[in-house]
Amino acid sequence: MFIANNNFTLLPESYLFSEVGRRIRDFKQVNPERDIIRMDIGDVSLPLPEVVVRAMTEAINEMGKSETFHGYGPEHGYSFLRDKIAATDYALRGLTHISADDIFISDGAKSDLGNLGNLFGRNLKIAIPDPGYPVYSDANIMDGNGGEEHNGLFSNIIKINSDTQNNFLPIVPEGAVDVIYLCFPNNPTGVGITRSQLTQWVEYALQHKSLIIYDSAYEAYVRNPATVRSIYEIDGAEKVAIEIRSFSKTAGFTGVRCGYTVVPESLDFNFSDGSKANLNKMWNRRQCTKFNGVGYIVQKGAEALYTAEGQQAIKSNTDYYMNNARMLREALIKKGMIVYGGEDSPYVWFRTEKGSDSWDMFDALLHQTGISSTPGIGFGKQGAGFLRLTGFNTTEMTRKAISRLNESLIDL
Amino acid sequence: MFIANNNFTLLPESYLFSEVGRRIRDFKQVNPERDIIRMDIGDVSLPLPEVVVRAMTEAINEMGKSETFHGYGPEHGYSFLRDKIAATDYALRGLTHISADDIFISDGAKSDLGNLGNLFGRNLKIAIPDPGYPVYSDANIMDGNGGEEHNGLFSNIIKINSDTQNNFLPIVPEGAVDVIYLCFPNNPTGVGITRSQLTQWVEYALQHKSLIIYDSAYEAYVRNPATVRSIYEIDGAEKVAIEIRSFSKTAGFTGVRCGYTVVPESLDFNFSDGSKANLNKMWNRRQCTKFNGVGYIVQKGAEALYTAEGQQAIKSNTDYYMNNARMLREALIKKGMIVYGGEDSPYVWFRTEKGSDSWDMFDALLHQTGISSTPGIGFGKQGAGFLRLTGFNTTEMTRKAISRLNESLIDL
Repeated sequence: MFIANNNFTLLPESYLFSEVGRRIRDFKQVNPERDIIRMDIGDVSLPLPEVVVRAMTEAINEMGKSETFHGYGPEHGYSFLRDKIAATDYALRGLTHISADDIFISDGAKSDLGNLGNLFGRNLKIAIPDPGYPVYSDANIMDGNGGEEHNGLFSNIIKINSDTQNNFLPIVPEGAVDVIYLCFPNNPTGVGITRSQLTQWVEYALQHKSLIIYDSAYEAYVRNPATVRSIYEIDGAEKVAIEIRSFSKTAGFTGVRCGYTVVPESLDFNFSDGSKANLNKMWNRRQCTKFNGVGYIVQKGAEALYTAEGQQAIKSNTDYYMNNARMLREALIKKGMIVYGGEDSPYVWFRTEKGSDSWDMFDALLHQTGISSTPGIGFGKQGAGFLRLTGFNTTEMTRKAISRLNESLIDL
Repeated sequence: MFIANNNFTLLPESYLFSEVGRRIRDFKQVNPERDIIRMDIGDVSLPLPEVVVRAMTEAINEMGKSETFHGYGPEHGYSFLRDKIAATDYALRGLTHISADDIFISDGAKSDLGNLGNLFGRNLKIAIPDPGYPVYSDANIMDGNGGEEHNGLFSNIIKINSDTQNNFLPIVPEGAVDVIYLCFPNNPTGVGITRSQLTQWVEYALQHKSLIIYDSAYEAYVRNPATVRSIYEIDGAEKVAIEIRSFSKTAGFTGVRCGYTVVPESLDFNFSDGSKANLNKMWNRRQCTKFNGVGYIVQKGAEALYTAEGQQAIKSNTDYYMNNARMLREALIKKGMIVYGGEDSPYVWFRTEKGSDSWDMFDALLHQTGISSTPGIGFGKQGAGFLRLTGFNTTEMTRKAISRLNESLIDL
């Protein structure tokens, strides 16, 4: 008799953004005349850059002719793209110790964040930030890495809390943990991390032989030179850290699906019998077995981002969203809110006065102003009372949202 | 201290097709003057159909303009594609009980075959065909579903053997198994299955409450009306079976990446405490958590296959490869070989006289004729002594391969 994976019964009923979407749909059905300004899920509004459109159109034409057709590609991605990532995103920024062989092209950050658990042994202690992107905990619970559940807490999941006390910069745990998820610039708080602050985490991981999974999906939004863009800026990180990046938020790839994950060849850990486990080789084996690589046309589109025109498009797109985020930040500060983010990140995170339950505030904001947000509680207990807004809508809609916020009687 | 997933140490050193690729590269390096005819991995040679090129070009242009840009899509796929699949591949063939809500768009069969194990409880008995596509066993071993390993055998993996005795049609096991992988038309043997034969498996699954994972990637190659195209042709299958399909081999999508998996809403099993586990809901939760859906442009390309022109292109592509497979089949029969497949499938599977070790024969064929094959042993012990050739090369190259086979002194 087939028995289903019990761990699914331990998950929240629905994925956070599915629930946000459901509430917005319900609201629209009851209020078809209201127009909604989407500032919830981190989806972008600017179209694909022209240089990407041209490259993908050319690639499609290649695929339509026998002489230039491309069938199965390498599971870890084409060299033409891996080489350019290594050269531009790493070597050019002084990180010459990251090479093309360390880079795996993915169909986006969520897939790799979800699947990396396949590399984990059993019964590891896993440190997950609260607030944090819900995939970190959901994926681990689903995979049975949570351990014993009691009142919604899991014996193997150690929450690393952050809050207004530590400016939403979590500090290293006192005991030993085996896996650490970190995300900077942070989703949802928008907070960046400095080199000295991140060095503490890398040193902790080196000392405890922990694996860091560093979600760096928003690095292109960093503006402050003191803020870290890659964890490999920190000495020794290549021995303990996997870094995950995405083209979704930098170049409008949310509907195209491409990103990359760096699993350095120097990432040596052990199996339980003490024998050597090289995570680069293991991830390659996992991808060869359970993935067929990202499509050729998509990878040609991503490659175009590494031309001068492509790099300019990334700069221009991220500047546009950053300007929106800054406007939101300033408007909320003017209203007397406590606000984080919006400086090295497209996310603005703010505390509502009423804020014991973020879903109440989510509903109040939606019903009174037609603005959809993401409730902080969806990112963990420490998010209670907070809402996340994104700078990803158009500037026009962001301005409209700000005037609605200013005019509304809503008591945030 | 991070400990890596021990199950990786139990896997074959490299994935079958990676090993085949390595041997071909090595041969080429030593013999740069030899031209190789690739008949190993099931990669296609015909370019994307024009109707797909047009649809994808249009979709890219939409993505390049703000008004028509598409960001994140639904994790389970766009309705425009799910609806057409349900209408064309199912309802039109009389399978009206399969609806759009049962269909999940994927980036290819391998990803879903690899990831479906996420739905499995612990310690299930898993029946895997031998010979069979290596992903079935590799993915399960990697996920720790294999149980105890002893001399390369796993306590929870029951091999369902097929061989010349049963014409490579495995028969239902005597004991109870919980999960059953089946693939028809079969990879690697090319053998199709009739309704009465498949009914035995569905009845077995209904009786034992087993889950069938039915790999139907080659259904478009079925020519004999008595051969099954979808497992849902069998009464009750919608209560026990997941069906996996791909556009890779029907429309040149190996480098585009799109397929679909049918997880019927009627697929109710239990968790270990006896509570109801609906696999459609669980798979949706899995995909929402660990996947961001297939890109818009790719799904528009797949949608174009459901126009009259698209359906004609599938017919014409599959006819072309089937003609190659038939030629290979006939040539090998003429040489006195025992040959399977090539009638409802693009694969030709034949026994070599010398064949105690297929890797020897693989090397001999490559070195003497420059033809690359896939060694049967790579698909399991029952494949020893067999080689698989594919009809996916061009007709010109297939003819060339046949004359090399006829002229060679190689004693197959």
